[in-house]
Amino acid sequence: MPLELHENQGRVSLDTIRRLYRRNARLTLYKLIHKTHPAELACVYRYLNSAERQDIFKYVQRMEGLPLFLQELDHALIPEIFENYSALETASIISVMPTEELAELLDSFPEENADDIKALLNSKEQAELSEVLQYADDSAGRIMSHEYMAFHASLTVAQAIEKFQLMGEDVEMPFYIYVVNQDEVMVGVLSLRQLLLNKPDLLLSEIMEKDFIYVTPREDQEVVAELVTQYNYLALPVLEKDRKLVGIITVDDVIDVIREEATEDMMKMAGAGEDEDILLKTTLQNAGTRFPWLMASWIGGVVALGIIGAFESLLNQTVALAAFIPVIMGMGGNVGTQTSTIIVRGIATGHVNLEEVSKVILKEIRVGMLLGIIYGLLLGILVGFQFIEFHSPVKLSLIVGLSIFSSMSLACLVASVIPIFLEKINFDPAISTGPFVTTAIDIIGVTLYFFIAGSFLSL
Amino acid sequence: MPLELHENQGRVSLDTIRRLYRRNARLTLYKLIHKTHPAELACVYRYLNSAERQDIFKYVQRMEGLPLFLQELDHALIPEIFENYSALETASIISVMPTEELAELLDSFPEENADDIKALLNSKEQAELSEVLQYADDSAGRIMSHEYMAFHASLTVAQAIEKFQLMGEDVEMPFYIYVVNQDEVMVGVLSLRQLLLNKPDLLLSEIMEKDFIYVTPREDQEVVAELVTQYNYLALPVLEKDRKLVGIITVDDVIDVIREEATEDMMKMAGAGEDEDILLKTTLQNAGTRFPWLMASWIGGVVALGIIGAFESLLNQTVALAAFIPVIMGMGGNVGTQTSTIIVRGIATGHVNLEEVSKVILKEIRVGMLLGIIYGLLLGILVGFQFIEFHSPVKLSLIVGLSIFSSMSLACLVASVIPIFLEKINFDPAISTGPFVTTAIDIIGVTLYFFIAGSFLSL
Repeated sequence: MPLELHENQGRVSLDTIRRLYRRNARLTLYKLIHKTHPAELACVYRYLNSAERQDIFKYVQRMEGLPLFLQELDHALIPEIFENYSALETASIISVMPTEELAELLDSFPEENADDIKALLNSKEQAELSEVLQYADDSAGRIMSHEYMAFHASLTVAQAIEKFQLMGEDVEMPFYIYVVNQDEVMVGVLSLRQLLLNKPDLLLSEIMEKDFIYVTPREDQEVVAELVTQYNYLALPVLEKDRKLVGIITVDDVIDVIREEATEDMMKMAGAGEDEDILLKTTLQNAGTRFPWLMASWIGGVVALGIIGAFESLLNQTVALAAFIPVIMGMGGNVGTQTSTIIVRGIATGHVNLEEVSKVILKEIRVGMLLGIIYGLLLGILVGFQFIEFHSPVKLSLIVGLSIFSSMSLACLVASVIPIFLEKINFDPAISTGPFVTTAIDIIGVTLYFFIAGSFLSL
Repeated sequence: MPLELHENQGRVSLDTIRRLYRRNARLTLYKLIHKTHPAELACVYRYLNSAERQDIFKYVQRMEGLPLFLQELDHALIPEIFENYSALETASIISVMPTEELAELLDSFPEENADDIKALLNSKEQAELSEVLQYADDSAGRIMSHEYMAFHASLTVAQAIEKFQLMGEDVEMPFYIYVVNQDEVMVGVLSLRQLLLNKPDLLLSEIMEKDFIYVTPREDQEVVAELVTQYNYLALPVLEKDRKLVGIITVDDVIDVIREEATEDMMKMAGAGEDEDILLKTTLQNAGTRFPWLMASWIGGVVALGIIGAFESLLNQTVALAAFIPVIMGMGGNVGTQTSTIIVRGIATGHVNLEEVSKVILKEIRVGMLLGIIYGLLLGILVGFQFIEFHSPVKLSLIVGLSIFSSMSLACLVASVIPIFLEKINFDPAISTGPFVTTAIDIIGVTLYFFIAGSFLSL
């Protein structure tokens, strides 16, 4: 029966699995798990509790789709699931995975355990693993698949079809055929469709596409994702410097990269680390990830404390000034967050041309000034009417209006310059949007405000 | 020669195109454009100025890859490019696009112009367009492709291959073959690979996969993206309620959806609207998009102003209290942003189980309390040492420490409850992270602080 997909499908399975587990209906549970799609099961696993995860894994472990299940599972759950397994048992269970997935999975174990498990893989698996691990995290070499079809250029279409029929079942995404010469150097590519559309006696070298895009295994995953997105390819070949084909990156891996990068960027922009799985961590781990980022904000607050302290006599004379601190900080902070988010995302999606940054920055400043004028006027007018009992309402009006204007303009300047500068020096601009930019803007805003107030009130 | 991809490839083309344009080297420019990949050209277009875009489009207009170029181009640039074309010319140029892309493109014109252009399409194109437009924005029906292969179940493998050879060249992503019965009802699916792997005299109904996942044209694009990501499919069939096949959604469209949704979420989370193309807008449009979101922050600031005003006598008595406003607001605001980002992204990626929200919220509160204790202690100790000239350093220490603790804990509560509540009532949780949550937290923090200060100092 065809599966119709509806939003609560996952939830239905979750309830059923739980019920069967609680009733200890082993056989039914076993059968249900074996007919559930591994990806769906991985999704359900997220919502089980610790004991359920461990117990139910005894059934999952024997399913055919185990490699896909382990691949799709949130990796933060892995160590817990294998807690009661010896390193040898773990090694034998996870060795069914493709090497690049195995490398990623091992990363989720504490280093000591991972080393123990690695040592118990067989020598072929170990060799393959070392090959993957030679590439840096987040490089193309780490996600490329080693299962692909590379055919010699001298084959005819008929021979290629025959060869495909022999091996087609083992290959994950057999939609492109990579054409290599006698030295395994890639010389062209063709799609399965082209095999079917051409005469059987033509040579692959005659029908292949010789203009193709490739990446090296050291290329950044984000660049690979960008290429696949731009050109709408289903897979990209990965070539070593000598143009030898060493792997392919498929579109499903690219989708994972895009999602992970987006999540990482959002987390970094909020100053919450970059751990996709933070929701699955303990309170202590969660707080530990977030603690250092808040330090920026704390130090900024202490600096602001010192600055305001320096203006104590001014404050003593005009205590009403204190009441405007929140609105001046808030407006600068929020307009700055808007700017830095627009710029950081613009850099990530290629909308910011790094050759013409002055245009981008100048526009942000214009926007900041425009918004600053409007909100400064609004607050100035409000103050003019509200604080008539103040000894000089016009002065106060001018002070707060001018402070809003200058803090919002400067906020846009700072919030656009910092991410662009970070990108230029090859730092991740996403980290700038978080507490750093906000804190810088807070300090600038408070200083400007008291400086402006001091100038006017001493007149 | 194979294209090696490197980061500045786009930039090289940009410079070359500009140089040729300035030298008025028409023929060379024409040739260069015609051998550039349309997707790359669309990317270069982003960085040209207005006049260059309009002039160079005269060459682009005649290229074979025009539909792909228009599809990949930032849509904010469309109206400008067609500025000097009549509605009839525009209609005839853009009618080369697939209907679903045409519908999206028309959306980028001012409504009046779009209506004029629509009226000038031929009647077949108009009928197809109305069919697409019957579905809501962001629904599967809007992005589904109408080019797919649907074969009858009674065909043999050999007949199917023959039919494929006749039509395979016209279909965008011919990797799945959809099997239908005599009523055009979808009954199964098979991949091109399966055609090649099976005996020629078998019927499609014998080899097809009968268990398949599909969506309806009214399904939300995000749900479709979720399914494709989870199951690693290259395309999903779209079926009407009577199970008639009406289109397919391909993985390249899904990638665009994922990226757009991520950008939209980031922008909403920063309170910067949800316009992907904001960087291409004028200063006025940009400021206009951002203005309303800042209003929340402004109103919040005015409320804080009123609250602090209410504590004027307390401030008069202890003016040092003013200096702590920034640090208390900053810590609450930043920890709250962390929490709401984690929760909002967790909801978007399926990491937050909406059936067990109390667990999620309680953990956030624990994290907030833990971080609040640490940062409260740090500030309390600092104050104890720094402000010894204050009449009661211990009291001030307690006031600020306790205020940090309570504002950070409450911030985590508010920042986790609001997005979950919004999701439950089917509102987009991403909007909550922006100025709304921050402003609410600012007000709560300031109120708590003065309340605590008032209680201690009147002792």
